[in-house]
Order: sequence, then C-alpha cells, then structure tokens
Amino acid sequence: MGGDFGPRATVSAAVRALQAHPRLHLSLFGQQPALDEALAQLPRGDASSLSRLTLHHSPAVVAEDAKPSSVLRGSKDSSLSMMLDCVASGEAQAAVSAGNTGALMALSRRALGTVAGIPRPAISTAVPTRGKGHCYLLDLGANVEADAGRLVDFALMGEVMARRIDGLERPRVALLNVGIEGTKGTASVREADARLRDFNHMDYRGFIEGDGIYSGHVDVVVCDGFVGNAVLKASEGLARMLIQRVQQTFEAHWGSRLVGFLARPALRRLRGELDPVRYNGASLLGLGGIVVKSHGSADAIGFAHAISRAMQEVREDLPSQLAHELSERRPVIASVACDRGDSGTDARCQTNE
Amino acid sequence: MGGDFGPRATVSAAVRALQAHPRLHLSLFGQQPALDEALAQLPRGDASSLSRLTLHHSPAVVAEDAKPSSVLRGSKDSSLSMMLDCVASGEAQAAVSAGNTGALMALSRRALGTVAGIPRPAISTAVPTRGKGHCYLLDLGANVEADAGRLVDFALMGEVMARRIDGLERPRVALLNVGIEGTKGTASVREADARLRDFNHMDYRGFIEGDGIYSGHVDVVVCDGFVGNAVLKASEGLARMLIQRVQQTFEAHWGSRLVGFLARPALRRLRGELDPVRYNGASLLGLGGIVVKSHGSADAIGFAHAISRAMQEVREDLPSQLAHELSERRPVIASVACDRGDSGTDARCQTNE
Repeated sequence: MGGDFGPRATVSAAVRALQAHPRLHLSLFGQQPALDEALAQLPRGDASSLSRLTLHHSPAVVAEDAKPSSVLRGSKDSSLSMMLDCVASGEAQAAVSAGNTGALMALSRRALGTVAGIPRPAISTAVPTRGKGHCYLLDLGANVEADAGRLVDFALMGEVMARRIDGLERPRVALLNVGIEGTKGTASVREADARLRDFNHMDYRGFIEGDGIYSGHVDVVVCDGFVGNAVLKASEGLARMLIQRVQQTFEAHWGSRLVGFLARPALRRLRGELDPVRYNGASLLGLGGIVVKSHGSADAIGFAHAISRAMQEVREDLPSQLAHELSERRPVIASVACDRGDSGTDARCQTNE
Repeated sequence: MGGDFGPRATVSAAVRALQAHPRLHLSLFGQQPALDEALAQLPRGDASSLSRLTLHHSPAVVAEDAKPSSVLRGSKDSSLSMMLDCVASGEAQAAVSAGNTGALMALSRRALGTVAGIPRPAISTAVPTRGKGHCYLLDLGANVEADAGRLVDFALMGEVMARRIDGLERPRVALLNVGIEGTKGTASVREADARLRDFNHMDYRGFIEGDGIYSGHVDVVVCDGFVGNAVLKASEGLARMLIQRVQQTFEAHWGSRLVGFLARPALRRLRGELDPVRYNGASLLGLGGIVVKSHGSADAIGFAHAISRAMQEVREDLPSQLAHELSERRPVIASVACDRGDSGTDARCQTNE
C-alpha cells in the first residue's frame, strides 16, 4: 500500500517478478479492493505465474507520516504488520515494502528481533560509482547518532553484504570523514578507525571524504545515519537537477533541436542509470530476517528490483551469515535487552554499550 | 602558494582581477622566485594594472598537510601568516587563499579574532540550485560537531550573508535534517529548530532533507560541519562522475560520433556551470575580518572568482554587519575567552555555551 504509486506499482512489480522467477512465490498484503483493482488493470498475462501469487486482505494501512511509536501501539492488522508476521512465522522468507521507513524499521525490530546483540539495524543501499561499479553506503538514517561501536558494526555488516551478495573476495571498507588524516573528525570516527585497523580479516582502507563514495575505490562506506541520509538525499537532489540541466542544455541552446532529438535515447539511458542515484532496494541489516525497503518514488520496475534484492539475500541466507560473522568478529558487549525493539519511540540509536 | 596549481593560478588570477577591477589593489604573499616565475610566464599585458600589484616575499610556506596546531606554533613569516597580519593591521581589507583550510582557519582566528562572541567561525559556500539560483550551505567543516546554539549562529550568519551580499530581502533559511517532521533528528537540530521558530525577523522554513539543498526553495541551509563537508564533497564527486558518464554516453553509444561532436559545446558549458558544484570562494564567517578560501582545485578563473567574492564582502563590510546583527539578535552567552583562537589544537567546536 506504500510508496508514491501504491498498489499500482507493487502489484505490477509482483507479476513482473513472478514471470521472471519461475520458483518465486509472492504474498501481497493490502486492502483487498485496492489489490483487486490493481490486478484488474494489468494486461492479461501468463496464468501460471499468478498461481504463485497470494493476496492477503489487511484492514489497516500505516500512514506515510505515522510515527513509529504510534504504529507500534496501533493496529496489528496493517499490511506492514501482517507481512512481517508472515516472515516471523517462517511462512515467508523475506519482506519488501515501499511504505513508511520508520514504521517498517520499528515493526521489523518487534517482529524479527536483531542478531548478535545489534541494538538497532542499519539501512544500506548501493550507489553507482565511477567505472560502472557500485558502493554500499550505511547507515542511511536508522541511527542518527552512532558511537564507535555502532560504526564498527556497520563496517562489519556492510563488508559481509558486499562479500556474500556481490561475491567480492575482499570488499574494500572505508569510514566517511571530513579529511583523511587520523586527527580529523569526531571522537566516534577516530575511535572507530582505531578499532577497524585491528580487524585483520577486513580490507579496511581508513578514512575517505565524501567524494570517495563515488570514486569506485571502495565497496563499503560507513557513516552515522544522519550523515548517510543527508549525503544520499543530497545526491538524489543533485542528480535530478543535473539531468534536468542536461536536458535543458539540449533544448534551449541549439538553433536546431536536431541534436537534442538525436541525443534523446542516450539521455534516457543515462537517466535510467543514475536517477535516483541508487539501485532500488535498501536492506535493513542486523535484523533476524530479511527486510528490503523500496524507495517511495520507485515504479514497478524499481519495486521488482527490490524484490530481486530480497531474493538474493534469501539465497545467501544473509541474516544467518551476519549473525555468524558478527558473533565471531564483534566483541558482544551490547545488552540483550536491546535485542528486540521494545519501544522504538526514539529515532536515535540507543546502544547499551 | 597553495592549491593544486600554486602561484601559476593565483598570480594569473591576480592579474586578471586587477584588469577587471580598476580600483582594486592586490598584495601577493609567497616565495619570491615562485612569484617571479609565475609573473614572467604571463602574457605581456596592461602595465597600469601591474602598478596596483605588490609582491611580498614570505620565506616560509604552510604545507598542505600541516596540522593547525603545529602551524600556530610555527613560523610567523609564512605566506598565510603574513597575509593575515596585513589584514589585521588594516593594510589590506580582505584575504584570499587556496591553502590548507585548517591552517587558514586557525591563523585567521589568531590574527583577526571573532565577532559577537562567536566561538569559532563557520565556512560557507554557495551551491547551484534548480532554476539557476544558488543556496548557501554552512558549516562546511570548521565545526565537526555543533550544538543548537552553534546551528542558530550559522543560520543567523548565513541569513545576513544572503541578504547583504545577494541583496535578498528575506532569505529563506532551513535546517538540514533526516526528515521534515519535528520529531526527527538529533537533539541539537530539534532544539535549534525550536529556537529559530522564535526569530520573527527571519524567514525560517523549518527542516529540509538533503535533496532540498538543490531544490531552489531555500537560500540558506544549515548543518554541522561534518554533515556539510560530507554533503559538499559527495556532491562534487557525484557531479564529476555524472559529467564523465554524460561524455561517455556520447562517445560510446553512437555508430557515428557526430552527435557527440555536435553536443560538445553544450557539454562544455554544462561542465563550467556545475563542476565542481559550487561557485568558487568559501567565506569564513564570524571572523573580525574578511577571509575567503579558494578551492584547492580552482584554476585562475576560479581563483579570480574568489577575489571577486572577497571584494563583495568588503563593499558590504560583512564582518561589521555580522557583528552588529549577531549582537542584536543572538543572546551573548559564549565566554569571551573563546573570542580569540587560542590553541586551535582540537578540530572540534569548543563552545562555552
């Protein structure tokens, strides 16, 4: 029910994904009339793929602007809650949603808990880099403040993801800072840097500055959720502005618009590659299950991409891998009381370290 | 002596600025042989403009990677120090440098002090926005942590700059956050938001997210120096990557390269507009004098732009305006001991509020 396009995008994406993946089964959670309407609008297709689609009527819907605290107190029969219960019970292996991120995070923590003493999951997505590669950036807003211990967690989780999902042998990990010298930055990033230097199994590259995210020189960039959120959203805004200016350049500055016309397919391809400056599908890392957040502005193709992302994480059993590697490599000093999201009322990271 | 191109760019920029502004006088500080060499390489031009140029030999140079603490202990006859002494004595009205930012900041505080109880200056530059406007972003790294009081200072200073330098009647000011709801973000931004709502003279627009920087809807965006630095540098990196991809799109994907060839002037203009995603010349705001930092990668045209920026601030007498308006509108609760940069050894903001 979430995202800018609602069931129109999610239902169409579901059918697209079922056709592309013959062994995929999907459950859709939402208000039955809306789901039926979206299904009815689809072109008649392959009936066999629809046999792998199950609709679940959810009476309630979590509003885009609902606070996580009120969502936790609220209805258990919202589409988000019902979807996550289905993962918690083992009936489904992963959840994908374009809904309210804070609510998704709070409900996911309650339904699935976290692994290896992680107090609060991190959100991560891949951004495109030079050389047509990509780089995972985390956290993107779940932890608006992060002490050194949390930054180290993010580095460990990002590294596991890049290794398992992308098959990189030794992902290159870096900490985002205002300079590359060891004396720069906050106490948290300096302390995290010192700790990460002791991780011999990790290809830790030290500090990078903001431009390093797009350089193609590293595979994982770690920062607190405030910084990551600001950087990602600023990048989206800048990319949209730049693409608009490229188009205006071709529309306005030519006596004949022939060149603009000829350039159109190239510009369309470019926009597809770069707008909105991330591959759709952000992973909630550190949960006891797989949850992928689709961007609110994603269309059916984008949402289908987020479904593929979830499938990759299922194939690699990412939560178990994270639990295993974090337990091995991370000194477990967080209190167990943090393991389950109990209140979720505070948007900040509440570590018990 | 600073920047990627050293005196080659600064000397050429100086002559360019003297030719453009018939009443401008410039003093250049650097090692005499390097200055002489750069001057000798310039095309023979208007001798009358060179009569307004004075060369000052400085035996020492501050290294790009020198720490502010060691620079403060070090030689007083570096080009940076001598330039700032010249401003402190009133011999010059503004300083422009492409050198080590941390050293420039520390030496500027020592030589010029700060106004209105500001504990530490902020760095601000303009970034391009939709609709071909621009927006001031601050802080860009001088204060890697900023409490509510500092964020309010940044808002006040950015507002004065946009009003005085750009002639805007009521600049629109916003606080950068991870969401637009009042419950989002750190305690500092929420507290700063509450305080700014009480400033009736200011057109305060509340929180914006990262993409709002480039939207054209606000004129000043306030955040701590860590976030601002990360956002600005990520934007520079992204813009370079995007422009490279636009070029590759035209070079690789066309049977004939005719379109790419025809598109070249438009692409060149675009690059000029957007790379490196800021108008060159970052202001150090809150000092008892005018200091403008030119980007290290700026060429002679970019450095000349930074000189123009300094001239604008001289015309408006920006430090006095800031001192006046801050004293009127800001509750002076910072200790006077902060007024002069005494040690500069810590990269963090040390407010006594």
